[in-house]
Amino acid sequence: MANDEMLFIIIHQTYELWFKQILHELNIVRGIFSQPIIQDNTPDIYNSVHRLKRISSILEVAVMQMGVLETMTPLDFLDFRDLLRPASGFQSIQFKMIEGALGLRYDQRYGKAYYLSALKPADVERVKSIEHEQSLLALINVWLERMPFVKDTEYWKHNDTGTFWKEYRQAYADSLTEGEQHNLLIFDKIFIDDNNYPADRSFSADASRNALFIMLYRDHPLLQLPYELLNILLEIDEQLSMWRHRHIHMVQRTIGKRVGTGGSSGGEYLRGAADSHYVFKELSELTSFLLPRMLLPVLPVKVISALSYGQNNG
Amino acid sequence: MANDEMLFIIIHQTYELWFKQILHELNIVRGIFSQPIIQDNTPDIYNSVHRLKRISSILEVAVMQMGVLETMTPLDFLDFRDLLRPASGFQSIQFKMIEGALGLRYDQRYGKAYYLSALKPADVERVKSIEHEQSLLALINVWLERMPFVKDTEYWKHNDTGTFWKEYRQAYADSLTEGEQHNLLIFDKIFIDDNNYPADRSFSADASRNALFIMLYRDHPLLQLPYELLNILLEIDEQLSMWRHRHIHMVQRTIGKRVGTGGSSGGEYLRGAADSHYVFKELSELTSFLLPRMLLPVLPVKVISALSYGQNNG
Amino acid sequence: MANDEMLFIIIHQTYELWFKQILHELNIVRGIFSQPIIQDNTPDIYNSVHRLKRISSILEVAVMQMGVLETMTPLDFLDFRDLLRPASGFQSIQFKMIEGALGLRYDQRYGKAYYLSALKPADVERVKSIEHEQSLLALINVWLERMPFVKDTEYWKHNDTGTFWKEYRQAYADSLTEGEQHNLLIFDKIFIDDNNYPADRSFSADASRNALFIMLYRDHPLLQLPYELLNILLEIDEQLSMWRHRHIHMVQRTIGKRVGTGGSSGGEYLRGAADSHYVFKELSELTSFLLPRMLLPVLPVKVISALSYGQNNG
Amino acid sequence: MANDEMLFIIIHQTYELWFKQILHELNIVRGIFSQPIIQDNTPDIYNSVHRLKRISSILEVAVMQMGVLETMTPLDFLDFRDLLRPASGFQSIQFKMIEGALGLRYDQRYGKAYYLSALKPADVERVKSIEHEQSLLALINVWLERMPFVKDTEYWKHNDTGTFWKEYRQAYADSLTEGEQHNLLIFDKIFIDDNNYPADRSFSADASRNALFIMLYRDHPLLQLPYELLNILLEIDEQLSMWRHRHIHMVQRTIGKRVGTGGSSGGEYLRGAADSHYVFKELSELTSFLLPRMLLPVLPVKVISALSYGQNNG
Repeated sequence: MANDEMLFIIIHQTYELWFKQILHELNIVRGIFSQPIIQDNTPDIYNSVHRLKRISSILEVAVMQMGVLETMTPLDFLDFRDLLRPASGFQSIQFKMIEGALGLRYDQRYGKAYYLSALKPADVERVKSIEHEQSLLALINVWLERMPFVKDTEYWKHNDTGTFWKEYRQAYADSLTEGEQHNLLIFDKIFIDDNNYPADRSFSADASRNALFIMLYRDHPLLQLPYELLNILLEIDEQLSMWRHRHIHMVQRTIGKRVGTGGSSGGEYLRGAADSHYVFKELSELTSFLLPRMLLPVLPVKVISALSYGQNNG
Repeated sequence: MANDEMLFIIIHQTYELWFKQILHELNIVRGIFSQPIIQDNTPDIYNSVHRLKRISSILEVAVMQMGVLETMTPLDFLDFRDLLRPASGFQSIQFKMIEGALGLRYDQRYGKAYYLSALKPADVERVKSIEHEQSLLALINVWLERMPFVKDTEYWKHNDTGTFWKEYRQAYADSLTEGEQHNLLIFDKIFIDDNNYPADRSFSADASRNALFIMLYRDHPLLQLPYELLNILLEIDEQLSMWRHRHIHMVQRTIGKRVGTGGSSGGEYLRGAADSHYVFKELSELTSFLLPRMLLPVLPVKVISALSYGQNNG
Repeated sequence: MANDEMLFIIIHQTYELWFKQILHELNIVRGIFSQPIIQDNTPDIYNSVHRLKRISSILEVAVMQMGVLETMTPLDFLDFRDLLRPASGFQSIQFKMIEGALGLRYDQRYGKAYYLSALKPADVERVKSIEHEQSLLALINVWLERMPFVKDTEYWKHNDTGTFWKEYRQAYADSLTEGEQHNLLIFDKIFIDDNNYPADRSFSADASRNALFIMLYRDHPLLQLPYELLNILLEIDEQLSMWRHRHIHMVQRTIGKRVGTGGSSGGEYLRGAADSHYVFKELSELTSFLLPRMLLPVLPVKVISALSYGQNNG
Repeated sequence: MANDEMLFIIIHQTYELWFKQILHELNIVRGIFSQPIIQDNTPDIYNSVHRLKRISSILEVAVMQMGVLETMTPLDFLDFRDLLRPASGFQSIQFKMIEGALGLRYDQRYGKAYYLSALKPADVERVKSIEHEQSLLALINVWLERMPFVKDTEYWKHNDTGTFWKEYRQAYADSLTEGEQHNLLIFDKIFIDDNNYPADRSFSADASRNALFIMLYRDHPLLQLPYELLNILLEIDEQLSMWRHRHIHMVQRTIGKRVGTGGSSGGEYLRGAADSHYVFKELSELTSFLLPRMLLPVLPVKVISALSYGQNNG
């Protein structure tokens, strides 16, 4: 009698193919950002944005194709479920490697004990080893820190009068309503008061300042693609989250609260992971510190020029 | 200077149009189920499934079109944000009415205080008034309770030897692994021990039993469309959840942690709502109590016949 | 230097996996319809609809995931294009087998010479052999012909006064505006005048009449799922067409007018195929012969009863 | 009795809202390109790409939401069809205005007579008036023509030895297989032999050369966003085509061959339009004249420098 086991297998194979391609693209992007310097006049940033957009495009398919698996009803799943043990359907090592390559560290993973128990020791090693490599998060942090136009000048010293960050802090403070005053405390902690910079953040103070600067002044040529880069990282985070949520729904509808195919109560783990595995959360939170364009400090001519194409382009 | 306010407005208008259509379809379906009896030989169930699938189809668009709003960057949003106060972008009354028409009660809503504070008194009344009507959940419960083929016979008395439910309980108990034994306690509480039926459930014991029966024997003609009906209700729940999650992401990326346009810290409310507003959760949990087809009790000929088309069809 | 060859390969692998699953589902459905009789009181039609909907769900993904390949730019394609010869990107044998299993015959294929030249002889044989099996189209035709409720009674004799088809013809004729009068000629040719029934049609006169009857009276229980069946066949046809069109666009944007990877000018073939390979076209054309419900002939009680559930369900 | 008229109306309203937003974005982009000069060091190109991507994102929704209308069956459509006359469902003036704003001219429209007959005179005027404005196509042509880095130097004289285009022509000729030799004739007609430049082309010889140059050398910073711009124009063309095809399918499934709600046989017009209304076809055809990166002429240092950011960014 025909059952849906083949569907189950085929969908997992397509997921593994997509995940393989995502890892491939991530490795290329990590290779680009592993260079000591990213030269402006190379296609490096442009290519990175292009490849990250491809990952986003693949994730869009990955979310959507969950709908195919949802055509399998719980009763149909039970017909072949016992054949699957002890392998779990969606314990995809490659997916965990993607999370690791992006920057999710073992100690940030939800339900660490469950996470370990469900994997073969060799697979734990595979995931851990990718977590010991330079993650995209770490590489982006270094890249943000060394933005050339914010180095070595008085203007960028962030805690003195008359500098950019003093000026921006004032404009930001002026923009806050009464109910938003606590935002200023967080602002100072992240952008101004380097001595008390929170130890648990993934991005350094320099990287955070430069990321915010890119978001604010992305209208200048040199910052347009860096802004696209930050934006697509947030989009990937979001899509991974959507994938986890849709995965949760699929599992709940198909398997219910009985033990999952990996010998686990998968639903709870998935929900915990979906709510906490945002790799680029700190970037996304910068949104709280933006100002409307008309309130932005006017940049010195020299800085504007450094953010522009050469004069010879007419 | 061109800004994105028009985009913001237009997207909200399209959402309100879709929500209007969803409410319209829901009202038709509620009308169908408000009849004293749903006759088998009418298109009532078929039409209900058809209209609920349309709602599902609209929700698929609603989730996806959030992507259009996400083309608005945080900086672009700030350009016109102050023009919006005090109206909030996504405080859609119609959306809350949809939740109410499906069966979400005020006392189940996440963050009740916040929920009230963000609405105009007249709108609170509108939502409350729909919650006082017969919700689809309540109507489905009544419909499930009065399934004609499970009435008035010894076979369906659920707590005596030799009846269907005793037999099913035994088969279910036999199927459980050691780690799943607690499932039997829950099984008994819901399906067997009517005196201790949990008071806080939306579905009655009769309705729960009949819903499980439909899921198990949906291969018989009379149960095929009822099964589709239960299934599409779960799908709608799931899609509403996906919509809320995508909405959360959009808000976080666009607005950050500053106060939302409705004078609210919307993100937290949305997340709470997304995790708790499952209207048909009890149906979805029935999945835990299914058995593979080959372990199902064989139904008496008389019951099978009652689930079949008339003999005159050759 | 990294290139996009892996993307190209992986996408083709996912397509082949999806096509494999589609063929699997098609074979199950063809198996169901190969039975001498489809009993009403089995889940046969219900299961067929379910599996065809799954095919539709897969095709939706297949159309959408073309977007991933479109992230490959023409210049990037040229980087590895010469490595591909002589294999062609999308000369998927499985796709042609799907077309064949549905009912596309060799002599209906667009660009037969091109079609042959681009395939290996062994693959031509594989596609031809599936075209010699009973296609889903042929099986559906037989199933439609033997609808039990339209057999052996005076009422169904289609060319006598007082019968159903005389009555329906009159109602249809009355409904036509002046500009639509030619529709009546076609109506007669297909439904009334069996002696002049067009020799080139895939569906017989009996099958066509019964298909139209199902479309008109699908509100009756026994016809609800058969109607869903006809509808999902049209949807699959439509999605295959959308896939071909999106495929065309991808090829044009990526390859241009140079010879394709299979040594072919693929674009023209694809367009021809997309415009002509509608397998269930005759079903789709029946739409022209529908009448609004209020103009439909009232069916005799005996027929209505034959389309209903048994009386014992009350 | 409930019918689907409201669905029909609501979907059309959502389409009109989306079309309104698309026109709004198109007008902003046309405004940008109406400037005498597009300065490199402004966000003009970046913003244009951003807005065109938004249009693409809206069109993706527009294609997909046709699925909601397809939940309306032909029989359900007939229930309210007569109420619609003489207004036609999808004779959207705004859609035609979008085509006109992009660059589709009246004399290129498929089925001109039908097109006119189906519109109210005032609406014909509205569409014609937008066709008399500068279309995006015309503006892009001018923008391509005035690319600053290809002006006024010997290197760019396209028909002399040792210049860029002589060199590129040679490399292109060398790359052609025997079966592709006719491509060289077309190459010469478009890029080399200005005296015989085909009169019926929308893009001038200068614009065509510069567009091809952008496609070839898009790895250089100054050409990255212009390439994205050309690419997104092709994507919009493609999506409009997909929309038309899906629209055709919806009409055929719902209305059949009877006269459409606008008193027209809409299907044929739609198919003709879908196959011929590619506004940026000439851009898409440039793909045929690309070479792999490793065969590209090496650009002079001075040109490379003009395509780069200023040296001060180090």
